[in-house]
Amino acid sequence: MPDLADLGAALSEGALTTEPATMEAYRRDWTQSDTAGMPLAVVRARTAADVQETVRWASAGGVPVVPRGAGSGLSGGSNAVDGCIVLSLERMRAIEIDPATRTAIVEPGALNAEVKMAAAVEGLWYPPDPSSFEICSIGGNVATNAGGLCCVKYGVTTDYVLGLDVVLADGTLVRLGGQRIKDVAGLSLLKLFVGSEGTLGIVTRAILRLVPAQSPRATLVATFATVEVAARTVVAIGRTLRPSMLELMDQASINAVEDYQSMGLDRTAGAMLLAQSDAPGGARAEEIAHMEQMCLAHGSVECFVTDDPDEGEMFAAARRAAFPAIERRGSLMLEDVGVPVPLLPELLVGIAAIAERNAVEIPVVAHAGDGNTHPIVVHPAGDAAARVRAAQAFSEIMALAISLGGTITGEHGVGRLKRAALPDQLGPDVMALTHRIKQALDPKGILNPGAGF
Amino acid sequence: MPDLADLGAALSEGALTTEPATMEAYRRDWTQSDTAGMPLAVVRARTAADVQETVRWASAGGVPVVPRGAGSGLSGGSNAVDGCIVLSLERMRAIEIDPATRTAIVEPGALNAEVKMAAAVEGLWYPPDPSSFEICSIGGNVATNAGGLCCVKYGVTTDYVLGLDVVLADGTLVRLGGQRIKDVAGLSLLKLFVGSEGTLGIVTRAILRLVPAQSPRATLVATFATVEVAARTVVAIGRTLRPSMLELMDQASINAVEDYQSMGLDRTAGAMLLAQSDAPGGARAEEIAHMEQMCLAHGSVECFVTDDPDEGEMFAAARRAAFPAIERRGSLMLEDVGVPVPLLPELLVGIAAIAERNAVEIPVVAHAGDGNTHPIVVHPAGDAAARVRAAQAFSEIMALAISLGGTITGEHGVGRLKRAALPDQLGPDVMALTHRIKQALDPKGILNPGAGF
Repeated sequence: MPDLADLGAALSEGALTTEPATMEAYRRDWTQSDTAGMPLAVVRARTAADVQETVRWASAGGVPVVPRGAGSGLSGGSNAVDGCIVLSLERMRAIEIDPATRTAIVEPGALNAEVKMAAAVEGLWYPPDPSSFEICSIGGNVATNAGGLCCVKYGVTTDYVLGLDVVLADGTLVRLGGQRIKDVAGLSLLKLFVGSEGTLGIVTRAILRLVPAQSPRATLVATFATVEVAARTVVAIGRTLRPSMLELMDQASINAVEDYQSMGLDRTAGAMLLAQSDAPGGARAEEIAHMEQMCLAHGSVECFVTDDPDEGEMFAAARRAAFPAIERRGSLMLEDVGVPVPLLPELLVGIAAIAERNAVEIPVVAHAGDGNTHPIVVHPAGDAAARVRAAQAFSEIMALAISLGGTITGEHGVGRLKRAALPDQLGPDVMALTHRIKQALDPKGILNPGAGF
Repeated sequence: MPDLADLGAALSEGALTTEPATMEAYRRDWTQSDTAGMPLAVVRARTAADVQETVRWASAGGVPVVPRGAGSGLSGGSNAVDGCIVLSLERMRAIEIDPATRTAIVEPGALNAEVKMAAAVEGLWYPPDPSSFEICSIGGNVATNAGGLCCVKYGVTTDYVLGLDVVLADGTLVRLGGQRIKDVAGLSLLKLFVGSEGTLGIVTRAILRLVPAQSPRATLVATFATVEVAARTVVAIGRTLRPSMLELMDQASINAVEDYQSMGLDRTAGAMLLAQSDAPGGARAEEIAHMEQMCLAHGSVECFVTDDPDEGEMFAAARRAAFPAIERRGSLMLEDVGVPVPLLPELLVGIAAIAERNAVEIPVVAHAGDGNTHPIVVHPAGDAAARVRAAQAFSEIMALAISLGGTITGEHGVGRLKRAALPDQLGPDVMALTHRIKQALDPKGILNPGAGF
């Protein structure tokens, strides 16, 4: 084992710490898993050179490195393993906007919201918008290939990554891509690193594609008797236009929000759809009218549309309130399963059955337009038996999604929490292929071991 | 060396041939390179099992396999090497459209245009549109991560690939992705295979994302005194809206078209921009008016707009006539270099200097909105000295693009023609990383050796 003091001396002043309170604070992401290990030290890098030094030192000693952005992950991907270096990128947060090329050159610790704000100053927009966009970092977004609400029209993180600086497992820094928009020279290594959850390399800089500022949005809210009808409406809408948001809340999540803070939502509705259009000019009104017509044609119970941004924001707030509302009901296990869009009803009916069978509450909010859902398994804090039932429900939901041709994770990543279920989705041949790539890039297995796959 | 007869017996009836005329016909793609080798045999697979049998047989004997779609490649990626099996996928061309999931399940030999047509029957659209869309195959599009004219707004092939069946170098068939839109489970292997030019595996099925049918398009044509002014206009337009097409022709290509077939283009113009908007409803007129205003504000000499599709098509025809027009002027070497959009003027001025220095003609057409250009090096057929000068110019243009932070290929692929220039773009560390991936996936090096990197 090489000497920690050597590492500390090689890094920026104050980057390395073994102070117990700090180590405790950096052991876990938002999953707050009780299986997180205890690090050897925490490195808060200030430069790419700090990252290279850390990885070189770890490689020499076979010490695991667990990279970490803002710590807002929901799958345990940044949870420490015993004896690791937790490598935090939170202090590397420079942002440079280049309006001529419409790109942002960003360090990994910069928050998603900070990039959006810097782009807005130039009349530009960075679309990917995880619900946590105010507190999550670009490095974490790249590591998980994060999605969000607008990806139904604008795609996910990987669609906006034009370039990456990556520190490999031996400490080499490679520069992939650049400020050009189209580039097919060589293998798509750039895309391989996006979504690799820190297992193949550590991102120290990203070049992100920006687009012109989003047009004003009009909003539609519609309730339906059942999730089946709501989902059929989603399919019908998707065949004719691309809304800039298309979210679904099931009855349990509507009621959780109403319990938390009365917003006048219809507690008897089987499901509620929340849609937006940001089409330019007069097309916004046309798109919203078309979606309204679709909702009514499919038997929507109530349908309300508004072109007023404040009113629209009020409804979007109901959707965003779902997570805090549900959080008050107990301890949570947050799912991220996805299925082909027309199978949403089967998924939601199956989840209701799983909830009943395991005697747990499972409200669902969904990025319905993408078929990506967040069933939230709720169990009373401190009730060990309920926790076991919740874990069982959590596994059953992933198995259900796989059986429907779906995925165990649409945007949060596998992390450490969903790792056991991954082979069921990918099968042995794809798992073997995955391990061959890992072996080729990180033969000592020091980069985020136990995460991702 | 295993016996060819064994392979023939394992394949679909008539799949294997060693007939000399057929072998000659399958030796080259459109680059018509005189360095193409002579295959051992040609396999025209009918099923994924044929592909697996072929690769297993080749793997056992260490025989190279050169996969091939429609043979419309422009970089020599499908040119045979001596003693290889040319594995043609042209007979595997089933297309199934699933309107509910908005996906196309496609065999690799299906033509891009056939997929577009099948999708259109369901009111859906497959956007990627290489200029060769009527004759190029989806398998080739995936292998090169093909682009086209609409990618300035709609992205490239990789943005539409949701799933792939891939036969690996040992004959294993892996199934990646599926009909779900968002999926971050495991490494982004899907994206790694897109653009890998047949060097990592052979695609036997693709699941493609479809979107609602494109809205009607309005068209703008504007001429400018210089390419600098035209390029500055492109940058300005891109900051405020996303046109569905934004093409540039330089003076040499305008004149080549006029020489070929008089269309009334302004031979004195330094550059011509061709833009389209497909914004929904009334927004189309607003976007075109805005672009017109931008062109005039930047000093456009003449600017013409039309909402009439036939008239718009006439102008688009001028752009598409560039290639046949230039082809009549001699033998061609077709470039595909790209730079960050604001550096287009530097690139074009540099290309003009290279043309003069090497005494060759180099007209340029460009997907200007993406910074992706097609300089076409013309030299008299049969003039050996001119051919040498053309090859020199070809190399110099790639070096220039690299020096401007650009790429040697934006959408055609490296193939065999640009391989020598790739290390200059990627550098030794990225080349080494590339070879580690190749070694992990194809340790015997049988898949398309000499192509891609």
